[in-house]
Amino acid sequence: MLIRIYYEDTDAGGIVYHTNYIKYCERARSELFFSRNLSPTDGENSGFVVRHIDSHFLGMSRLGDTVEVCTTLVKKKNSSIILKQSISNDGKEVFVMDITLVFVRDGKPHLIPEKFSEILC
Amino acid sequence: MLIRIYYEDTDAGGIVYHTNYIKYCERARSELFFSRNLSPTDGENSGFVVRHIDSHFLGMSRLGDTVEVCTTLVKKKNSSIILKQSISNDGKEVFVMDITLVFVRDGKPHLIPEKFSEILC
Amino acid sequence: MLIRIYYEDTDAGGIVYHTNYIKYCERARSELFFSRNLSPTDGENSGFVVRHIDSHFLGMSRLGDTVEVCTTLVKKKNSSIILKQSISNDGKEVFVMDITLVFVRDGKPHLIPEKFSEILC
Amino acid sequence: MLIRIYYEDTDAGGIVYHTNYIKYCERARSELFFSRNLSPTDGENSGFVVRHIDSHFLGMSRLGDTVEVCTTLVKKKNSSIILKQSISNDGKEVFVMDITLVFVRDGKPHLIPEKFSEILC
Repeated sequence: MLIRIYYEDTDAGGIVYHTNYIKYCERARSELFFSRNLSPTDGENSGFVVRHIDSHFLGMSRLGDTVEVCTTLVKKKNSSIILKQSISNDGKEVFVMDITLVFVRDGKPHLIPEKFSEILC
Repeated sequence: MLIRIYYEDTDAGGIVYHTNYIKYCERARSELFFSRNLSPTDGENSGFVVRHIDSHFLGMSRLGDTVEVCTTLVKKKNSSIILKQSISNDGKEVFVMDITLVFVRDGKPHLIPEKFSEILC
Repeated sequence: MLIRIYYEDTDAGGIVYHTNYIKYCERARSELFFSRNLSPTDGENSGFVVRHIDSHFLGMSRLGDTVEVCTTLVKKKNSSIILKQSISNDGKEVFVMDITLVFVRDGKPHLIPEKFSEILC
Repeated sequence: MLIRIYYEDTDAGGIVYHTNYIKYCERARSELFFSRNLSPTDGENSGFVVRHIDSHFLGMSRLGDTVEVCTTLVKKKNSSIILKQSISNDGKEVFVMDITLVFVRDGKPHLIPEKFSEILC
């Protein structure tokens, strides 16, 4: 997934504001669902929620750059998954994170529905 | 209402990203409700929606500045209101807008409930 | 220019937060420059700044929708331009605005450089 | 530091968008500097940059809530610091992170200037 850096993404330091890398990763995760006509939620009170993010900021990106987000599955459990998402800018890795998502129904961890199995592989 | 300018508010130009002034005005409107223990909505399917904004960008603000938002009622109709909201930085007006809000219930304009009358005066 | 709606774009009302439409228009303007290997700035202390936005919010967009931004030149003067930018969602116009941009050098309006003439037509 | 939750902070799930907690922590760090009339930067090409964030999302916040950010120093080295920042909502911890900040001059780690010592204790 390619993402262009616009003014809204930068800060007074002239580079991408740090939390925006984490937003780009969320866009890439959502796109995994949308591109298969699925939603990250499953009805009113269930869906994936972010539980843990361990992130490393390795480089910078500037206005007009195009960065690429890559997402790979690290681990799949009954009600949660761990993904590795990295962002590269002109071939150089500028950000990488491990993220744990828990599938929750009515506020409690719940078995991940079968329909998501195709995405998470 | 006073608002501090943080990194997230600025862009690569070193100043506040233009649409953020409109966000600050929304904060000030919401605060009018919250400070009276009210919500800008009234149940599931009703609330105020933005219909029109006419905005002038008159000056700049930088990281660490504190700006002040002032809100005054311009006009009140049965189902809509027009507010003037201005933002000043160190005594100088940097932004001003007229905003039209319509009270909507189930997708249609609706008489503004009595409980909001105290706020809108 | 096509823009996908992600979680970050929506608010607790379940729809796109109003100021984000204005951000999408900025992305479309920047893309006009980037796609020609140009920058919206011209050296350290000059570039286009937003002076006035007159905007109408006509409809709603939701998570996963793809909206389209169209930009047309309304008027071109020596040091400023007026653009009309509209956003449609599934063929229906949800937002339209007129925006005045002023070319500024060292804080003062300045003749728009020749190199931008190709874009602004 | 107290932070009110506005529409811009929430997403279509009705709760605070996850990366915004990390933005609130940045506001709190900046405020440490601003409240002492200092800047997080030190001249053109030096300042603190985010290197690593390890974050846990423990609960939810909703429109109109007021959350509190607490910041404590975990470790101080020559050119970097580790802070623990936690966010509580109505007495319940909803977010906690460890963040590593490196002081950088001309793109390289550099001894943290003396003037910041008062803040970092």
